[in-house]
Amino acid sequence: MKGQGMNIVLLSGGSGKRLWPLSNDIRSKQFIKLFRTGGDHESMVQRVYRQIRSADPGASVTIATSKAQVSAIHNQLGAETDVSVEPCRRDTFPAIALACAFLRDVKGLQETEAVVICPVDPYVEDGYFDCVRELYAEAEKGRKNLVLMGIQPTGPSDRYGYIRPFRDAEGNTGYTFTEKPTEEQAEAYIRAGALWNGGVFAFRLGYLLGKSRELLGTDSYRALFEGYASLPKISFDYAVAEKEPSIQVMRYSGMWKDIGTWKALAETMAETVVGRGTAAESENVHIVNELDLPILAMGLKDAVIAASPDGILVAAAEHADRIKPYVDAMEQQVMYAEKSWGNYRVIDVGSRSLTLKVTLNGGQRMSYHSHERRDEVWTVISGGGRVILDGEERPVGPGDMVRMQAGQRHTVIADGQGLEMIEVQLGSDISAADKHKYGAVPGFPERETDRP
Amino acid sequence: MKGQGMNIVLLSGGSGKRLWPLSNDIRSKQFIKLFRTGGDHESMVQRVYRQIRSADPGASVTIATSKAQVSAIHNQLGAETDVSVEPCRRDTFPAIALACAFLRDVKGLQETEAVVICPVDPYVEDGYFDCVRELYAEAEKGRKNLVLMGIQPTGPSDRYGYIRPFRDAEGNTGYTFTEKPTEEQAEAYIRAGALWNGGVFAFRLGYLLGKSRELLGTDSYRALFEGYASLPKISFDYAVAEKEPSIQVMRYSGMWKDIGTWKALAETMAETVVGRGTAAESENVHIVNELDLPILAMGLKDAVIAASPDGILVAAAEHADRIKPYVDAMEQQVMYAEKSWGNYRVIDVGSRSLTLKVTLNGGQRMSYHSHERRDEVWTVISGGGRVILDGEERPVGPGDMVRMQAGQRHTVIADGQGLEMIEVQLGSDISAADKHKYGAVPGFPERETDRP
Repeated sequence: MKGQGMNIVLLSGGSGKRLWPLSNDIRSKQFIKLFRTGGDHESMVQRVYRQIRSADPGASVTIATSKAQVSAIHNQLGAETDVSVEPCRRDTFPAIALACAFLRDVKGLQETEAVVICPVDPYVEDGYFDCVRELYAEAEKGRKNLVLMGIQPTGPSDRYGYIRPFRDAEGNTGYTFTEKPTEEQAEAYIRAGALWNGGVFAFRLGYLLGKSRELLGTDSYRALFEGYASLPKISFDYAVAEKEPSIQVMRYSGMWKDIGTWKALAETMAETVVGRGTAAESENVHIVNELDLPILAMGLKDAVIAASPDGILVAAAEHADRIKPYVDAMEQQVMYAEKSWGNYRVIDVGSRSLTLKVTLNGGQRMSYHSHERRDEVWTVISGGGRVILDGEERPVGPGDMVRMQAGQRHTVIADGQGLEMIEVQLGSDISAADKHKYGAVPGFPERETDRP
Repeated sequence: MKGQGMNIVLLSGGSGKRLWPLSNDIRSKQFIKLFRTGGDHESMVQRVYRQIRSADPGASVTIATSKAQVSAIHNQLGAETDVSVEPCRRDTFPAIALACAFLRDVKGLQETEAVVICPVDPYVEDGYFDCVRELYAEAEKGRKNLVLMGIQPTGPSDRYGYIRPFRDAEGNTGYTFTEKPTEEQAEAYIRAGALWNGGVFAFRLGYLLGKSRELLGTDSYRALFEGYASLPKISFDYAVAEKEPSIQVMRYSGMWKDIGTWKALAETMAETVVGRGTAAESENVHIVNELDLPILAMGLKDAVIAASPDGILVAAAEHADRIKPYVDAMEQQVMYAEKSWGNYRVIDVGSRSLTLKVTLNGGQRMSYHSHERRDEVWTVISGGGRVILDGEERPVGPGDMVRMQAGQRHTVIADGQGLEMIEVQLGSDISAADKHKYGAVPGFPERETDRP
């Protein structure tokens, strides 16, 4: 349906430790609010979403991601954002097949409609999304099965995939896909006209659903979703692009940065300090501080300092891209998490206790639940709402305390502007897994996340 | 009384920000546990105290310090340690006069007994205290009024005071005292036989009490203590040493370090990491981490990283000695404090709330008190004890909650191994000054700190 705005699927990839301590097992780099916009900061996903809306106000955006990111996406982009939830991590082909089935079976798109797939985390100028629209328009025309974005290389990087054109025996142009060559190889590729593979693909929905039937045995959303864990881990490049003879590549020559490491990320930051921090007698030092403590950097050069409830990183720029093995070696408890209803932060770890600051957004509530092996104590510190304890509801405000014994069913509902409280968990065996959910809260409609 | 062990007064100087974030307005560098001893760590004051006991097991030690340090001294050296408490900060002469009056009027020393005065914070080898004993023995003999330690300079430093010998017209040796000369001047002094002034003085008690009568108008402990705020701010060097013709200087040539700055402190640390931390691909990096978060340093060289509830410092060694103005510029709330009964740490700062983790040592209790403008909620997380609220006592253990309304008198007494609790303070005007004390806790003997 031409003229209606493009159908775009944003692939919101896995979490990782390359941007530790701001990313962790359950928190991905694309949600860190690092980029100044007016007086505030936006995350990578917010920046890309805003750029898409600006390039194409009618765009229909779907985010393909894992269950763990759904809360963060709804918090950052709005609760009405369409999300194709991957039950577990496979590779890009199953994720794209599931998202395409979601577009047809859940959102009701026709198989003749075009779709463009984009990664959620490139740092680009607005013109990038004009190029994305052109890919989409080409896919709508349907002259080729697959339309890809090729990014004009700025140097022979060994970190990217390359799209290399060649001519076959009949004089037709074909493409070879090569991942992460050496710098010498990359130089030769670029001389021969190669472009970086930006991971942007456009096609008609029916084309990809055909590939899904062919390679995964089905194109039904329900079947793909329910059988997701047993799908093969294959990339879109390997499963589709490398084998497709009918390909069009469109060149993008504007600014494009893959900000998957601290060094690359620091280069994109317009300001040197986000959060509480001072860099004195220093040069090219970036501070990102999510803690409520001041950071003072003295006499540093070309360095990144990042602090979050998960830890503190101080890295020379040239070393910042190699932190992963060291982070892997550190024992970590998740100290901060975003939830559908707000967020929590661990503020004290005792031998038989865990103390959290819990923030519920206005109108939100936790699931109705109990714990088997711990008691809990809540002390409301701001805002107000209602607590339900074993079916009995009572209002709470600042200073009110609630004690939940192990086994008691409980939830809290934030009214108005939301509610903040200190939660003390008490027991010798405190674990996030010790949680029993009980369906709908008495007097409230059931939600999907209420399901035990 | 020869052979009984020396009388030694340790001057425990003011707090400061040169070792921020480990020192602050109420916490001094000499209490930071940085030095490995066996499997544990000891502070500067613990190290010096241990060295004195080892050099002279019979030594009678008195600490001269401000009120703010008394709790930390009793926690680190034992509750029976003698402390001459300075009601406010003057300079070294009033502090030494008060301590000497304390020795005679409170500890019962004779005026003919010798005393040696030592700073609490030099980092020295054990031989230093053998030299201190020799000073003391010379002072006992009484051949000169004043016996000083002169430290053999290791270079023309511009950071120390110099003791410069000269010969007067009659051929007698006299001494000139010069503070912090330029390096050029220092070089000339050293060529002429000058030594560093280590701030170690020995004399007979009567000598100093005479100076006290002469310069401060009294040598009575009570009079000095009560009139302390109006005493002149003069140093011992200026008031006494520079004017005294009968001086003996004894040379100390062993290891001596003034660890008043991060650079100097790092040089004395036997291990590079104290607390949770990793220095990877790094060289000569020291990490001191009092937070319960891991620190990862990557690719740094010659740097100090220190983290405490007050903040995070990352400094190149050559810049670490200049942090003070930057720290002064940062707005600070005291986030950690040692008290006579244990300690507290601020774990969350809200707009109308403050959350603390409070640790009471076994057998300890807070003063019996109330607040005018805030409510408080306690949740016990470990250990046990008793709470008294408006005169009513009740036992508490893990998970028990207590709510104190503004105006309600309250205290908590830790039994057995002590007690830990989360304290939530609630109000729009939370201040440490909002505290009314009510004398003795019902049923408990009054203590000095109970006085309103």
